[in-house]
Amino acid sequence: MKLQALRIVITSARKFINMGALSRLWNLMKNLHAADIATVMSHFTAREKLVLFNTIYEKGKEKAAEVLSEIEPEDAAQILKELPVSEISDIFQIIPSDDVATILPLLPEEMQEAVLEEMEDKPSEDVKGLLHYEEETAGRIMSPNFYALNQDTNVSDAITAMQLEGDVESAFYLYVVDDDNRLLGVVSLRQLLFSRPNTKLKDIMTTEVISVHPETDQEEVARAVADYNLVAIPVIDSENKLIGVVTVDDVIDVIDKEATEDIYKMVSLDATDRIQDSPFSSIKKRLPFLLISCITASLAPFVVNYFKGTLQQAITLAVFMPLVAALGGIAGNQTIAIIVREIAVGQTDWLSAKKALFKEISVGIGNGVVLGAVLSLVSYFIIGNLFLGLILGLAVIVNIFVAAFLGTLIPFFLKLLHLDPALGSVNFLTMCTDTIGILVFLGLGTIFLKYIS
Amino acid sequence: MKLQALRIVITSARKFINMGALSRLWNLMKNLHAADIATVMSHFTAREKLVLFNTIYEKGKEKAAEVLSEIEPEDAAQILKELPVSEISDIFQIIPSDDVATILPLLPEEMQEAVLEEMEDKPSEDVKGLLHYEEETAGRIMSPNFYALNQDTNVSDAITAMQLEGDVESAFYLYVVDDDNRLLGVVSLRQLLFSRPNTKLKDIMTTEVISVHPETDQEEVARAVADYNLVAIPVIDSENKLIGVVTVDDVIDVIDKEATEDIYKMVSLDATDRIQDSPFSSIKKRLPFLLISCITASLAPFVVNYFKGTLQQAITLAVFMPLVAALGGIAGNQTIAIIVREIAVGQTDWLSAKKALFKEISVGIGNGVVLGAVLSLVSYFIIGNLFLGLILGLAVIVNIFVAAFLGTLIPFFLKLLHLDPALGSVNFLTMCTDTIGILVFLGLGTIFLKYIS
Repeated sequence: MKLQALRIVITSARKFINMGALSRLWNLMKNLHAADIATVMSHFTAREKLVLFNTIYEKGKEKAAEVLSEIEPEDAAQILKELPVSEISDIFQIIPSDDVATILPLLPEEMQEAVLEEMEDKPSEDVKGLLHYEEETAGRIMSPNFYALNQDTNVSDAITAMQLEGDVESAFYLYVVDDDNRLLGVVSLRQLLFSRPNTKLKDIMTTEVISVHPETDQEEVARAVADYNLVAIPVIDSENKLIGVVTVDDVIDVIDKEATEDIYKMVSLDATDRIQDSPFSSIKKRLPFLLISCITASLAPFVVNYFKGTLQQAITLAVFMPLVAALGGIAGNQTIAIIVREIAVGQTDWLSAKKALFKEISVGIGNGVVLGAVLSLVSYFIIGNLFLGLILGLAVIVNIFVAAFLGTLIPFFLKLLHLDPALGSVNFLTMCTDTIGILVFLGLGTIFLKYIS
Repeated sequence: MKLQALRIVITSARKFINMGALSRLWNLMKNLHAADIATVMSHFTAREKLVLFNTIYEKGKEKAAEVLSEIEPEDAAQILKELPVSEISDIFQIIPSDDVATILPLLPEEMQEAVLEEMEDKPSEDVKGLLHYEEETAGRIMSPNFYALNQDTNVSDAITAMQLEGDVESAFYLYVVDDDNRLLGVVSLRQLLFSRPNTKLKDIMTTEVISVHPETDQEEVARAVADYNLVAIPVIDSENKLIGVVTVDDVIDVIDKEATEDIYKMVSLDATDRIQDSPFSSIKKRLPFLLISCITASLAPFVVNYFKGTLQQAITLAVFMPLVAALGGIAGNQTIAIIVREIAVGQTDWLSAKKALFKEISVGIGNGVVLGAVLSLVSYFIIGNLFLGLILGLAVIVNIFVAAFLGTLIPFFLKLLHLDPALGSVNFLTMCTDTIGILVFLGLGTIFLKYIS
């Protein structure tokens, strides 16, 4: 939906909610795509969300269920909590089981069991099957519904069998298995259309199938789908048996989520922090980290305090202190951004880490020398003290070198600890470049004090 | 391919290239997926890339073309530049025209024309058609090959017609048009399989089709595909005529690229800067920006210089200066990260900007007051000067408020100027928080000098 149209819908919907004009609200919503309603909802307060959902639910369960699949899982749980168990289980039988598996664990525990109890056997088993796998794995985001037929089936029987099974959402492939349900190959529906009715599946299938295991990390699943240009990827267990399929729409959600997480973690933000949250909830999320930052950011003041005597005698050093610190931070952030994205998008291991370190250090030295030289000269012409210029230049060179070194090592080191490579990296680096930059600058200043004071 | 296997292939391939053992190199490559070869290649130097490509090209043109579609366009252009025009045009006839449209403009200009001249009419026209649209629009990344048939065609005729047209890569839909080629609806190949042979397309088509225009920004295209869970989106001109289709694999590339760009632009990195580049080329890309940073980062020293007299009398102020600056930067980075991602993923306009500003300022004031109070108390107990504590606390409150205010406004302001919302935002913000933080802190220090010296 265009921004202009969206804004009008949001404003009108809000007005209708406040007026209690719920049939007019429904009229506004009934022709919108569920994804658009989800976008509208994302601009609403918790209360408005609930009213909008209930209005849709009363007029059309199906539509309400679709909307629930599209909104943030946290919002969906918030809404469902207010409904009776029987209605929740009704809705859960309509929406895809991978979406249920995401929303259900966010409900209060006693509610979860009651809902699973109330649901029909098949969907309930499907959801339990998915919940069996850890969060953020292929097993959690796969769909247990897909077309799979025996290799000896012919094309015409295959079409009939698929028809009997009914419409499987976003299915573009038919998977081919042996008698033990082991994955042998894949046939696109396009191939199926173009093949003679009596051809056997095994004669038209592609046997080189890219697949993942249920334990595979969702990021790795996303990379496989992206690298091999797939629209779905089969999930097989240790015996090569087909147990699910991850579709590209879920992969895009993963890619979006991981990109947001990369940026968020670099600046130590909680992954769930959103503009729409209340200020109070965001303060609660950010404050603990900012308090930690007060401690890490106090390292630099300690260094300055140590050199108070030097500063007293050569106050000009205090003038250039922020410049040395800032340039280290700026150069280091660039290195971190490159390494974090490289780890996210590419395949990176210690072999490439070594190469990356060498590369970034070379860049750091190169840039440092040029910047250092420029700053030396400029400050010399402005202040007229050659030594101060040299000290400034040297400190900048060292600090940009340190920034390149740590900017590369911090993300790889975090990855080695099985933490997110971006986690707080920008702030940790800033602490280091602030402290080391000032230490080198004031240290050199102390050594050459008689030439600059 | 698993990391372990990848590393072995890279090491062996490199060895074979250095030994000139090119048939062994080919044996190593021939069973690999083109996407895997592309990953291997991304770890190579320019010379190694060229040798690997030529080896594959001599053994199998098709495979070489596939690899070319998978690697970075800049790398592809680098390799093709070394080939004769006739071979380039041969390869360009094999790979999808949207990929050609990305690579071709990166070749030397006289080469571009010669290659287009040499290519057969149809693919050459296709490419020229795409090049007609601006970079980063739907028109540039769409494929001009798709299935489209008249609404009065019946299912069985449709299947025959599609078969005659041949295999269209990653086609999962059949588009339904009227006599003037205007888009009316869409039929999934799954629906086609399940429908009776004599049913007309117009009776089974879905008429609510989400589409884009060729001028639509590729990010907007990606958002539509992501929001509506599509695997392809049709591109229509101003007369509603179907002119192309953007497929989900290209959309994933766009999403990945835009996420990298968000992070890169926040720290003012060139979008093409990669670990694999030579240090010299990265220095060339980063140095101009770092030199600009020297100027912006010199604002804070000017402020310090102005307050030299105050510092001389109360050197303790110099100790806490870096702390005030750092906390502003840290809090501001968080706000920027939230706003940049919100603009990238969501639909954001000035209405939401106002709300975001209000929200972030509230958060800034909340966090600032808590941090300011804590730092006031702690510094009071350590240093024993109540006024210094109060000044520190006040400066932190003001600086975090400024950080929240500017952290929200900078990205929206850049967007208003039709620039990327992330562009240099982190560094610009740091300059502001460094300068304003120090200004407020030393300013207050000057006013209350007699109480702290």
